[in-house]
Amino acid sequence: MIDLYTYTTPNGRKPAIALEEMGLPYTVHKIDISKGEQFSPEFIALNPNSKIPAITDQETGLSIFESGAILIYLAEKTGQLLPTDPKSRFEVLQWLMFQMGSVGPMFGQLGHFRNAAPEPVPYAIARYEKETLRLFGVLDRQLAERDYVAGDYSIADIAIYPWIMAHDYMQVSLEGHPHLLRWTKTLAARPAVQAGMAVLSEG
Amino acid sequence: MIDLYTYTTPNGRKPAIALEEMGLPYTVHKIDISKGEQFSPEFIALNPNSKIPAITDQETGLSIFESGAILIYLAEKTGQLLPTDPKSRFEVLQWLMFQMGSVGPMFGQLGHFRNAAPEPVPYAIARYEKETLRLFGVLDRQLAERDYVAGDYSIADIAIYPWIMAHDYMQVSLEGHPHLLRWTKTLAARPAVQAGMAVLSEG
Repeated sequence: MIDLYTYTTPNGRKPAIALEEMGLPYTVHKIDISKGEQFSPEFIALNPNSKIPAITDQETGLSIFESGAILIYLAEKTGQLLPTDPKSRFEVLQWLMFQMGSVGPMFGQLGHFRNAAPEPVPYAIARYEKETLRLFGVLDRQLAERDYVAGDYSIADIAIYPWIMAHDYMQVSLEGHPHLLRWTKTLAARPAVQAGMAVLSEG
Repeated sequence: MIDLYTYTTPNGRKPAIALEEMGLPYTVHKIDISKGEQFSPEFIALNPNSKIPAITDQETGLSIFESGAILIYLAEKTGQLLPTDPKSRFEVLQWLMFQMGSVGPMFGQLGHFRNAAPEPVPYAIARYEKETLRLFGVLDRQLAERDYVAGDYSIADIAIYPWIMAHDYMQVSLEGHPHLLRWTKTLAARPAVQAGMAVLSEG
């Protein structure tokens, strides 16, 4: 049994999708970041950086934070969605890092300046919108030549998908990126993706 | 022999430090991002996201981009600086992801708004300075209880160090974070760290 500490954000949905895909039993624990619950002593013991998601694997006793590390852990635990041959494995890991280092942080900044900043900052909105659309373009070109981001369906797709699906929140369109749009429809049809994206949605 | 395509930035220095620590022979290829060389067709063939660093391992024929993926690759190739027992290994991987997803992107935004933005944006400077100092605090508390970020010296330290050493560029001080400051001095004394930080400095 995996304990999943999470919330209804792109990063929070990644491990839920992975757990559903891998068929691992898990219990969801809601950490309501709108109420600051990530700053409680109990959660800081799980992640000193006060960010969801985090997991505890009751089977091994290990607790892990950072969605990218959790995805690698679950993939290696089950032998699923992360190939073992070096070429394919590092294809996945580099696109997972691309998500962790660029897609998440930059889309996150655009979402902040579009929706949460207390004052309009046109320069910042333009900066992060430009970078978001550039990253859409990188993915669109990658997906023009293959079905999934890193070859076969993998934890790289699971990491990227919830962020792309935040496009309405970021007020950007997938128009002009037909391969990326096709990929979102392919993933949206997967029952595990649907279930993972809906984590806590009725909580 | 490893071909390292890089520049004199925090991300660009990470693989140089790792290669030096691991004693792997490598050839440095300068990709001058101040001249836009990361957008050349030759570099896009190495990384479709046009970001340094990237490597090619002549022994395996593999090319890898994203500094975090490169560090994992080099660690697994040599059996160094990334433990194999799951508890220690994921301790390192989660702090590596913390660097990739938070330290790098947020410090990078502060550096941009302090130094490169064409207009002053006080809200953005305050936002990223606050987050940078929060992350300093997370690391300081982590280093109060251990010598290195994830236990023993590892690729997590190598990933974080060049970003911390950009504090002058970001115009923030390490004052008030004595454990983080002690750790920077420990790393600064390592010949491999000195050599890696100096990559291309006389190029």
